[in-house]
Amino acid sequence: MLPQHVVVREVGLRDGLQSIAAVLPTENKCTWLRDAVAAGQREIEVGSFVPARLLPQLADTDAVLAYAKTLPGMFASVLVPNPKGAERALDGDADLMIVPLSASLKHSLANLRKTPDEVVAELGRIRAARDASGRKTLIEGGVGTAFGCTIQGEVKVSEVLRLMQALLDAGADHVSLADTVGYADPPAVSSLFEQALKIAGDRFWCGHFHDTRGLALANIHAALQLGVMRFDASLAGIGGCPRAPGASGNASTEDLAFMLAAMSVDTGLDIEALLTLRAKVAGWLAGVPTHGTLWRAGLPRTFQRTTAQQTPRETLRAGASVA
Amino acid sequence: MLPQHVVVREVGLRDGLQSIAAVLPTENKCTWLRDAVAAGQREIEVGSFVPARLLPQLADTDAVLAYAKTLPGMFASVLVPNPKGAERALDGDADLMIVPLSASLKHSLANLRKTPDEVVAELGRIRAARDASGRKTLIEGGVGTAFGCTIQGEVKVSEVLRLMQALLDAGADHVSLADTVGYADPPAVSSLFEQALKIAGDRFWCGHFHDTRGLALANIHAALQLGVMRFDASLAGIGGCPRAPGASGNASTEDLAFMLAAMSVDTGLDIEALLTLRAKVAGWLAGVPTHGTLWRAGLPRTFQRTTAQQTPRETLRAGASVA
Repeated sequence: MLPQHVVVREVGLRDGLQSIAAVLPTENKCTWLRDAVAAGQREIEVGSFVPARLLPQLADTDAVLAYAKTLPGMFASVLVPNPKGAERALDGDADLMIVPLSASLKHSLANLRKTPDEVVAELGRIRAARDASGRKTLIEGGVGTAFGCTIQGEVKVSEVLRLMQALLDAGADHVSLADTVGYADPPAVSSLFEQALKIAGDRFWCGHFHDTRGLALANIHAALQLGVMRFDASLAGIGGCPRAPGASGNASTEDLAFMLAAMSVDTGLDIEALLTLRAKVAGWLAGVPTHGTLWRAGLPRTFQRTTAQQTPRETLRAGASVA
Repeated sequence: MLPQHVVVREVGLRDGLQSIAAVLPTENKCTWLRDAVAAGQREIEVGSFVPARLLPQLADTDAVLAYAKTLPGMFASVLVPNPKGAERALDGDADLMIVPLSASLKHSLANLRKTPDEVVAELGRIRAARDASGRKTLIEGGVGTAFGCTIQGEVKVSEVLRLMQALLDAGADHVSLADTVGYADPPAVSSLFEQALKIAGDRFWCGHFHDTRGLALANIHAALQLGVMRFDASLAGIGGCPRAPGASGNASTEDLAFMLAAMSVDTGLDIEALLTLRAKVAGWLAGVPTHGTLWRAGLPRTFQRTTAQQTPRETLRAGASVA
């Protein structure tokens, strides 16, 4: 019932770093990208094309994207909050651009200063610009606050699904769902994702779960059971909600990679290399709260490496021994 | 598919405190018990009848059990590693005594200085003593290291199930499974628990998951999907494995209570009262690493209280609004 292969998309360089006041130097970001690729990561959200005065932490996204494009096998995403950002993503030849939409009207107005339907209309213009540019940059419409909102409270499932359909109709190549503030629980995930998959089919792209209340991995497990094959995560679990200071951020890349490997789901990731990179990043961010558990506990004695280098047969054996 | 009601059994006073060097005064333990009952907890493991020289932290288990027995509605468990401990549990009129068995031969020899089959034989003697005593104390055979062992490595599923059957045959009223060192993953839980439930039927009692690698809630979700209705947890997630210093301990009571409430599974727990108690206990244990996420993030804005005081109809509504 579970997918055989899952992509863990790294969002630490965007969702993670934007939540941290300190500005990580471009050189460190490039080292992070290089080591991430060496650890088997391929899909990485490298930054966000928002005005530098709003997010100085991500002001170097052009340079980081340019470096990412030099790495073999890399599939680089950027977040674009508007057509101007999309233009920069197209200029930089990003592999994918994520247009964030908040299904919570109040959050959308507070965060993006637009209604959700205005974002849908903008995605239509971004699609037209992409098509006119001749670039192959894919467009992902990401529906956030899909399980509720810290400002508005309840977000109706019907509204989440209506907006997802509208994004598809407006020309999104892919759509995704995000539990922006850690309000989801496994049955809520099963229910919403099942309906979303009916609407989007194979244009459904990614699940994004914050671990604010410790349920990210349980929620991912629920989505995996429906066959979802791509999840966002951030190294050391950085990221989070400004309304819950110190709360866990995103699902942590290394813990998710471990869960999937333990479940015999192939990710192509080298967990030990991820842990080494985690230590490096945590060192750069000294003083910033990090999250996750595997870095402290280490891999189980029964764990056998399942890296991209192994044959499917070896992967199977490694999984079998865990159970 | 999920059970309507689940018991979160508190093990912080036993599994939690035994992992902490400091000795919590009896008075504090009694306050903990009193507040836990006020927060809706009913089943609590109050201590362990092991020699005081081995675990001075639990040397006052007689007194704590005696206090627990004065609390209305309380169902007090104690851990008994041998017939001598069982005698003390019967003297104290414990509601349930847990006989721990390690399915890992090497762990069993290192930890209990007995083979698993010797533990089975002892449980038979404990059963005879219980029956002769006229007490109603139930006997739970707990099969630990059920998903692997830090000393031995792999633990065979067939051995786990053989020992569970042997405990039932020897007279255990109930049997349980424990992931003592945090090696389980959701599919491994689904597979082992499904087989265990076939063997034990309604004599299956409890799942015990350590959160060493962050998977406790995901693993509990997998067991819930099979209808398991009782899980161990410890307030503030205290507990752990001496081989993974600082690693997360047990599933945290308050996070599990939140997950279940969000899923509309009734627990009878007042989460805000649990968080207040958590703060109190963390204060007593100043300097000891605690775990869990809810205490930092707080309850979601969309969360509606589901306490024992609410009618089923209100509980239903509260659940519906979360999804």
